[in-house]
Amino acid sequence: MNCPMCTRWQDEPDLRIAEFERCYVQLNRDQFFPGYVLMFSKDHVTELFHLDPAVRGALIEEVNRVAEALYQTYAPAKMNYELLGNMVPHMHWHLVPRFTDDPLWPRPIWSEPHQEKQLSAAGYRETIERIRKALGDPPARP
Amino acid sequence: MNCPMCTRWQDEPDLRIAEFERCYVQLNRDQFFPGYVLMFSKDHVTELFHLDPAVRGALIEEVNRVAEALYQTYAPAKMNYELLGNMVPHMHWHLVPRFTDDPLWPRPIWSEPHQEKQLSAAGYRETIERIRKALGDPPARP
Repeated sequence: MNCPMCTRWQDEPDLRIAEFERCYVQLNRDQFFPGYVLMFSKDHVTELFHLDPAVRGALIEEVNRVAEALYQTYAPAKMNYELLGNMVPHMHWHLVPRFTDDPLWPRPIWSEPHQEKQLSAAGYRETIERIRKALGDPPARP
Repeated sequence: MNCPMCTRWQDEPDLRIAEFERCYVQLNRDQFFPGYVLMFSKDHVTELFHLDPAVRGALIEEVNRVAEALYQTYAPAKMNYELLGNMVPHMHWHLVPRFTDDPLWPRPIWSEPHQEKQLSAAGYRETIERIRKALGDPPARP
């Protein structure tokens, strides 16, 4: 099996935010939408209903915790939560703080193409540190 | 308060699929994407983290149940789950079966505008009946 999500935690160490029981949390490399975070389930599954109820519940609590930390960090107008997986069928959540002055507001982030925005190495580190602070004390950190 | 999601269950009785403990389930009027369903939380909240953990868990189990029923009904390549709310800040989930032969596959449903597709009254009724059958025995029905 050659799933890019299964190895992403290993492949992109500079984007690691936190390792939880059920998910890995990584900053999205494209920061056109500031604070855009991806959460990957540790299990290689595609659908919510592929998980046992207890696992699903624990995973959603992790998604919730990260969403709240992003809200505290960025004070957006709204958090967007998306579980798609059409291109890569390994469960990953897109968590995106949205602002009334972002170029696509109030439309979904996919409504128009945009130029990818990469940060400097220091920029990624600082962004990740801010989010980690808001997360408090994750069970494990890279 | 004038929230269109708070009254949608009353306003659009022909789209009702099921009333659960935490959510109302309605077919999306636009069926360009076949099986597109909306789930509205009964509570007027905007973010996942505005809910008590037990309520959040129960709500997600309902989302999961509907997603599985849609998967059984439509046999899509992938279910898409989206909680956005930028335009109407009352929690509503977009549950959309996606197919490899749909016009926007594998991109998100928002990637290009499309012409809305309305069904006949009988078409809505039949679609809703199919989904209800897959849902089995919802706790309450309209």
